[in-house]
Amino acid sequence: MKFKFNMPVNLKFGSGVIKDNSEDFKLGRKALLVTGKNSARLSGALDDILDVLTDQKISFDIFDKVENNPNLDNVAMGAVYAKECGADFIVAVGGGSPLDAAKAIAALCTNDIEPIELLGKKFENPFIPIIAVPTTSGTGSEVTPYSVLTIPSMKTKKSFTSPWSFPKVAFADPRYTYSLPYLKTVDTAFDAFSHLMESYYSLRSTPLNDAVALEGIKVFAECKGDITIGNITEDVREKLMYASCLGGIAISHTGTTLMHSMGYSLTYFKGISHGRSNAMILAEYMRLNKSELPEKTEKVLELLGFDSIDEAGSYFSLGLDENPVLSDEECRTYANLAMGQGSAKLNPKSVNEDDVCDLYRIIFGGGQ
Amino acid sequence: MKFKFNMPVNLKFGSGVIKDNSEDFKLGRKALLVTGKNSARLSGALDDILDVLTDQKISFDIFDKVENNPNLDNVAMGAVYAKECGADFIVAVGGGSPLDAAKAIAALCTNDIEPIELLGKKFENPFIPIIAVPTTSGTGSEVTPYSVLTIPSMKTKKSFTSPWSFPKVAFADPRYTYSLPYLKTVDTAFDAFSHLMESYYSLRSTPLNDAVALEGIKVFAECKGDITIGNITEDVREKLMYASCLGGIAISHTGTTLMHSMGYSLTYFKGISHGRSNAMILAEYMRLNKSELPEKTEKVLELLGFDSIDEAGSYFSLGLDENPVLSDEECRTYANLAMGQGSAKLNPKSVNEDDVCDLYRIIFGGGQ
Repeated sequence: MKFKFNMPVNLKFGSGVIKDNSEDFKLGRKALLVTGKNSARLSGALDDILDVLTDQKISFDIFDKVENNPNLDNVAMGAVYAKECGADFIVAVGGGSPLDAAKAIAALCTNDIEPIELLGKKFENPFIPIIAVPTTSGTGSEVTPYSVLTIPSMKTKKSFTSPWSFPKVAFADPRYTYSLPYLKTVDTAFDAFSHLMESYYSLRSTPLNDAVALEGIKVFAECKGDITIGNITEDVREKLMYASCLGGIAISHTGTTLMHSMGYSLTYFKGISHGRSNAMILAEYMRLNKSELPEKTEKVLELLGFDSIDEAGSYFSLGLDENPVLSDEECRTYANLAMGQGSAKLNPKSVNEDDVCDLYRIIFGGGQ
Repeated sequence: MKFKFNMPVNLKFGSGVIKDNSEDFKLGRKALLVTGKNSARLSGALDDILDVLTDQKISFDIFDKVENNPNLDNVAMGAVYAKECGADFIVAVGGGSPLDAAKAIAALCTNDIEPIELLGKKFENPFIPIIAVPTTSGTGSEVTPYSVLTIPSMKTKKSFTSPWSFPKVAFADPRYTYSLPYLKTVDTAFDAFSHLMESYYSLRSTPLNDAVALEGIKVFAECKGDITIGNITEDVREKLMYASCLGGIAISHTGTTLMHSMGYSLTYFKGISHGRSNAMILAEYMRLNKSELPEKTEKVLELLGFDSIDEAGSYFSLGLDENPVLSDEECRTYANLAMGQGSAKLNPKSVNEDDVCDLYRIIFGGGQ
């Protein structure tokens, strides 16, 4: 057994954690709040943060132009803004997009590189520090070093990572997800679940990481029935945020696998949300890997209370009329792009491009 | 649910991790190796470290005068030595004593305070960084911020903690425990178990931390039979070191409880090893707390494969002829000292000095 474990983020979880820990905001003299158009305000997180920054006499500016699935231009714009306003730390608020964008902006603030060089770059200088405040329970980005960015020139998403891209502090307050609409709650919960499951399945999985992932799968399972009937209580919100944090901790150590590699094209080309994209692939992903990991597959089904992979597949299509239909050419293109993702190499069952193309055909109906 | 989670130590676990990660030693220009008389050499850790330091062209000096259960004078001597030789980081090698001493030495190197001020002190300056290399599987100190020191003026052990006392990197290589004699293996394994169990029982326990602790208890349980018959294979060594690391991660978040508070006097006054001291108290500790934590108590017994607390008590007296006998006065003194420990306040069942005195009487035979 060989493994590494490290969770350098100071994760503070629970109702009211921002106001309870206002000292944590003393990371610099000038904060840049990085967020999207709405979620920071709607969630109530922005008000709490502004109160604390005012209390602590820390000046701030707001960059609220992070797009969904941010691309390189978008984060470059944020970095220009951060430098112009003299920010020396970032408070990132929102779903995965603002949190991932903040990591890229933090990198570009201190490293004189082209945005495209973020990918695979060994950075010379420490990033400006980040405080992360999630307003969805899915991405887990608040506790990971990953920044996933859309790269139009490559027609896909790519991620970068660095020891400096871990947030310094993460405030996970389930109340900030209370205003999240039902379908977005489902999509993001499925994203969290995909992290837990892929980490558990990853070639890089370790006993300690498995314990974290299984705890998350157990907690997700406790919410499963309530998610189905739309009974999203405060207790469910809390559990989903907890499961999401666990998913983030888990993939920090293992990365993701083929479900993510395959999901990206559905988001890039079809505009399907990230969590939903993964969920569409989940059943075939389990079927594919069952021969390599029979015990883990049984364990996941047992914890979820499903008798079969079909039953799991049916659950994870909740709220979906039918899968989109992909042409054979689309299947080939997506398979090629999926194989270009590092996550494909961490899949327990080794696959080639033809295998992945077949998977797309099975799931998305083999249209012409 | 409110909780914090943070594991800033870069834990690298497995055979050969030091040589595989020689770059991690580049923490400064001059290393001070902090260790006791023998274990660094006997374990083989010292040779690996010296090879890597030589490869990396990092100069070093050795302070090998750490005593068992180091006191303030001992760590003060180490700090004088560290400053004289101009060390800017520490490589601590050994059991709990050298690792805990290293944290105190690292603090004293950069903070102009009296050694006694280590206790409860808010430190002004960051400590010099520490690399920790355990040669026992018990303390978990390589992944905790705790430094437990013997304080003769208080007739007990006391600990201090700081965000800076976490080692930067921990290299947990099970091979370094191969030379550990059987009884020391048992004693330290019992120490690791006490961390796992007390963290699980602690008033500060959280679901995430429970998952870590239960993973450790499960792994300890896998070794239980082999420990009994002295079949300490390489596989058992690996599992025990893994369980010890999990215990360290667990108590980093919760601290310990009454078992530790009560154990310290047995070490201080009777010279009984730390792990053994805890083990002597374990059964009555479980009985005491059973009413508060019936489910957790059942879970621990179930994982260990015991039908009753008596059976657990019998197991944890392995290799012991009989408990020492304490006089009534000793019971009173020890109870008073135990109540002065912060860990007593984290016990699930609230206790007063009389309760603790009764516990000592029950366990240690009510001698005169």
